[in-house]
Amino acid sequence: MNNYKLVIAYDGTRYNGWQRQGNTENTIQGKLNEIIGKYLGEEVDVIGSGRTDKGVHAKMQVVSFKTKKSIDIEEFVTDINRYLPQDICIMEASPADGRFHARLNAVSKTYEYIIDNGEVPDIFFRKYSYRVEEHLDTDAMRKAAELLIGTHDFKSFCGNKHLKKSSVRTITDIRLIETTGKVYIYFEGDGFLQNMVRIMTGTLIEVGTGKRDYKSITDILEAKDREKAGFMAPPEGLSLTKVEY
Amino acid sequence: MNNYKLVIAYDGTRYNGWQRQGNTENTIQGKLNEIIGKYLGEEVDVIGSGRTDKGVHAKMQVVSFKTKKSIDIEEFVTDINRYLPQDICIMEASPADGRFHARLNAVSKTYEYIIDNGEVPDIFFRKYSYRVEEHLDTDAMRKAAELLIGTHDFKSFCGNKHLKKSSVRTITDIRLIETTGKVYIYFEGDGFLQNMVRIMTGTLIEVGTGKRDYKSITDILEAKDREKAGFMAPPEGLSLTKVEY
Repeated sequence: MNNYKLVIAYDGTRYNGWQRQGNTENTIQGKLNEIIGKYLGEEVDVIGSGRTDKGVHAKMQVVSFKTKKSIDIEEFVTDINRYLPQDICIMEASPADGRFHARLNAVSKTYEYIIDNGEVPDIFFRKYSYRVEEHLDTDAMRKAAELLIGTHDFKSFCGNKHLKKSSVRTITDIRLIETTGKVYIYFEGDGFLQNMVRIMTGTLIEVGTGKRDYKSITDILEAKDREKAGFMAPPEGLSLTKVEY
Repeated sequence: MNNYKLVIAYDGTRYNGWQRQGNTENTIQGKLNEIIGKYLGEEVDVIGSGRTDKGVHAKMQVVSFKTKKSIDIEEFVTDINRYLPQDICIMEASPADGRFHARLNAVSKTYEYIIDNGEVPDIFFRKYSYRVEEHLDTDAMRKAAELLIGTHDFKSFCGNKHLKKSSVRTITDIRLIETTGKVYIYFEGDGFLQNMVRIMTGTLIEVGTGKRDYKSITDILEAKDREKAGFMAPPEGLSLTKVEY
C-alpha cells in the first residue's frame, strides 16, 4: 500500500464538521473519501489530524490515506481540486512514509479564533469571525491566557461530559493579536479536547468584557467542572491553522 | 427637509446590484429604502454615489437621503444596522448640507479588483476575488494600465452599447499591488461607465497571461469598439472602496 499526506483547507460553514458522527452526513471527511475514492476507483479512508466541529474552518488540516495505486502528485492535486466543491481545497500532496498517520503522529496543533470587535461589523468577515460589540480589554485577556498555558487538566473546558480518557493537555502558547477592529487569538498545544478552544475563547471574551476576573481561570481549572467556565464561542470564528509532526 | 449622508458597506453576492433596473427586485438601494423608510415612518429615496453591478461589493459606498424627521445619529446607526441583513452595514452617518447629493457631488471614485492568482485557490476569498490559474505578468499589466490612465473616450470599455451620453472619462490612477497569491488592482477616476472597471480588468488579465500585448491598449481606446477590448471580469472580484467629494 502507498501512503500519502495531504494539506487541505476548508470553509466549514456548510458542513457537519470533519467527521461523520452517528447518522450525520455532509462532512469534510466524507466528501474527501467520496471524491478521492471515485478518482482512484477504490475505497479510501482519509485520516485527519483531528476532528473539527460543525461550522469550524481549516486553513491547514493534515490528512493521510493509503491506496494500492501510485499517484502522480501534480495531476492528482489538479484533478481532485477540480472535482471538490469550491469550499474544500487540497493545497499540497506528498508521498509519506508507510508508518505516517495524520492523527497519531501529530505533535502540535494551532487554532486561530477571530473576533470582530470593530465599531461596526465587518460584513466581509461575518462567516469567519464572531462579532463582539462590547470593547474587549485585551490586557486582561492576555493575563487570563497566561494562566491557561501549561499542562493542566482541562476538564472544565471540555464539551464532552462523558469523556472517559484523560483530559490533561499541554498548551504551549496563547497569543492575542489586535488589528483594526479585530482580535486574533492563537492557541497552540499538543492536542485539544472537544469544544475546548471555543470554551477557552468564550471564557477569555468574558474576561475581556469584564464579566469575569482574569484570576478566575485558576479556579475554573481546579474545579474540573464545565459549568465553571465561560460560554462556548460559536464555530464560525474558529480555524485550524497549523499541524506539526 | 433634513439631509443625511451615510457611508455603507455591502456584500453584493446575493443582490441584483445597487439599483432597481426594470422589474428587477432585491437591490441594495431597495433594501435601504425599505428599512430606513419603515424606521422613519415615511417614504425615503436613498441616492448612491453610483450604481454597482449585480454581484459587485462595496467597502465604502456613499449615500444621501432627505427626511422630514430629525435623526439621532448614533441611535439611527445602531437601530438600522440591527434591522438590515448581515450583508449590508451602515458604517457612518452624519447630517449633510441641504445641497449635498451623493451622486452629483462625487468627484472621484476608487474601485478595487482582487485576483486570486496563488498556486492553489484561496477558498476563503472565493466570493470576493476572481480566480486566475495562469501566472500573471504584473509588469506587463502595469505597462498596460499606464496607457489607460488619463482622459480618454472609453467607449471600447463600456458594457452599454446604446449609451448616448459622452463616454469620455478621466482615470487618475491605476495601481497594482501583489501580495502572496493575490493581485489587487485599484482604479481611481472621476467616474466609470457601465461595466468599465470589469472590462478594463479583463483586458489587463489578458495582457498578464500573454494573450494580448500591453501596447494594444492604445488601439483599443482608438477603436471605440467594445469588441476590441478584453473579456468582462466577473463581478465577485470587484468592490467600490472610496468615494470622494
